[in-house]
Amino acid sequence: VDRRRLSDAEIREALSGLSAWIRVDNALRRELTFPTFAEAFRFMTATALVAESMNHHPEWTNVYNRVSILLSTHDAGGITGLDIELARKIEEIVGRE
Amino acid sequence: VDRRRLSDAEIREALSGLSAWIRVDNALRRELTFPTFAEAFRFMTATALVAESMNHHPEWTNVYNRVSILLSTHDAGGITGLDIELARKIEEIVGRE
Repeated sequence: VDRRRLSDAEIREALSGLSAWIRVDNALRRELTFPTFAEAFRFMTATALVAESMNHHPEWTNVYNRVSILLSTHDAGGITGLDIELARKIEEIVGRE
Repeated sequence: VDRRRLSDAEIREALSGLSAWIRVDNALRRELTFPTFAEAFRFMTATALVAESMNHHPEWTNVYNRVSILLSTHDAGGITGLDIELARKIEEIVGRE
């Protein structure tokens, strides 16, 4: 995984395959809505396991059935390949639910 | 559980036994820091089960080992006995960890 801070062009390229994600300054953002709290938290649990295995963690907020996720790499001061990889893995989880 | 919006005096009284919680406008707030992400998320999982069983859910944010919780009762437009009860149950979870 590329731990370098990505250029604007590299971020645009990566986001072309991640249509649910938007760039907000130095982070990637995704909003999700589930039918229930239980389903939102099930998604969070699956994502937590992936994040922990990557040792790369989201900043996220949950309100009932909604989850808002921000991905960024503090050490690099912006968006890196780690964020792209975690975003892709989150899409795999969303696709499975 | 009292589902009425509590008065300022009732909230002060309830918070006298919940020293880690502060009132912020129409919500109760608690910030927690754990040694690791895994421990923070373990706490969140325990709290999610309690919240679901009460059908009363927090607004909460997690960043690595930190968890920030806001409790409020939307239907009542403020803090009710449900929030006090959930805060107490969260303290029980914190005490067990």
